[in-house]
Amino acid sequence: MNPLFISIEGPEGAGKSTILEALLPILSVKRSVVATREPGGVRIAEDIRGIILDPKNTVLDGKTEILLFAAARRVHLLEKVLPALAEGKVVIADRFIDSSVAYQGFAGGVDVEQVKWLNDFATDSLKPDLTIFFDITPEEGLKRVMKNNEREKNRLDLAKLDYHKKVYEGYQALLKTDSDRIVAIDASKSPEEVLDQIINVLYTRFPGEFL
Amino acid sequence: MNPLFISIEGPEGAGKSTILEALLPILSVKRSVVATREPGGVRIAEDIRGIILDPKNTVLDGKTEILLFAAARRVHLLEKVLPALAEGKVVIADRFIDSSVAYQGFAGGVDVEQVKWLNDFATDSLKPDLTIFFDITPEEGLKRVMKNNEREKNRLDLAKLDYHKKVYEGYQALLKTDSDRIVAIDASKSPEEVLDQIINVLYTRFPGEFL
Repeated sequence: MNPLFISIEGPEGAGKSTILEALLPILSVKRSVVATREPGGVRIAEDIRGIILDPKNTVLDGKTEILLFAAARRVHLLEKVLPALAEGKVVIADRFIDSSVAYQGFAGGVDVEQVKWLNDFATDSLKPDLTIFFDITPEEGLKRVMKNNEREKNRLDLAKLDYHKKVYEGYQALLKTDSDRIVAIDASKSPEEVLDQIINVLYTRFPGEFL
Repeated sequence: MNPLFISIEGPEGAGKSTILEALLPILSVKRSVVATREPGGVRIAEDIRGIILDPKNTVLDGKTEILLFAAARRVHLLEKVLPALAEGKVVIADRFIDSSVAYQGFAGGVDVEQVKWLNDFATDSLKPDLTIFFDITPEEGLKRVMKNNEREKNRLDLAKLDYHKKVYEGYQALLKTDSDRIVAIDASKSPEEVLDQIINVLYTRFPGEFL
């Protein structure tokens, strides 16, 4: 079987985690699947993310944050993603390079070309074979986040609607520049319908790999 | 008085700390001087450096290391160096951008142009007004390090002579490309003679600022 690297992207409240949970058993029937999300249990990456998300560190500026994200991304990639791909597995990453471009670049104000340079540096220019974008308006996404009171409130969740609008614009720009790699699915639908869309995309893109 | 930003560079065992200790009271007669060294007591920068120097993290690759160094550099710059310069002080930094080029670039194997790009990103392209390079051969420098048994042995100190030779080559290359900014002094001499050389450089470069 071919190794496959798939990333899942989208704004807060797009429902990525819920859908991923339902998707994994389906894909795992035929393939060995590793679902991960930075820092993904990799100790050094966890330590780095701990610094970023520490509520005491509210003064962390955009450039510092993106350097730390890039470092955590690289460790996670080297220690978890690449070894799984080397074993021919399917790796599904909840967020990858596009999140930096949307969050730190478009919304955080760091020059987008610099963000892309840093991503290429940190990943040795590795791109996912496919990126599934959970398309949902920032208003709808934030509404869902607010409903979910149990969700852990970290520093990044405290950002405002304006910020999330810029994140969304960033993803829309990426959909245009990376249209071969990124496929948008309508994440405003019911979980069942979202799951159906994703399975259709995967079966069409990678015939015979999952079915 | 004009703010002045001076960095001190050189291989291990060049004697930077000893000389700096003797230099500061002399410069402080006329000027308000801040001596610092990354992470310089800046909490987040300390946390980041802790990850790099943790002996458990021997697998940290060159690119990850340089991303973390760049993040620590930026925080230290924003929170300690720039505020002091804004107050018109003299800031003397024990190591700055050139260390990354020599250690992570020339010796660590990360592409030197990429290291320079990252330095520019992290510092918003701020360069020291003057860099004093403690010139000592790697053999002589390492000999001095080995004599000093009390020196804390961290991961970076365990590197071999070959590594230190490459560090030295890196500094020599920088002396050529940045000859306006970097001045070499002969660090193989006695502490008194080294101090004399530095004071001469400072008095010549910045007439009236220190004397």
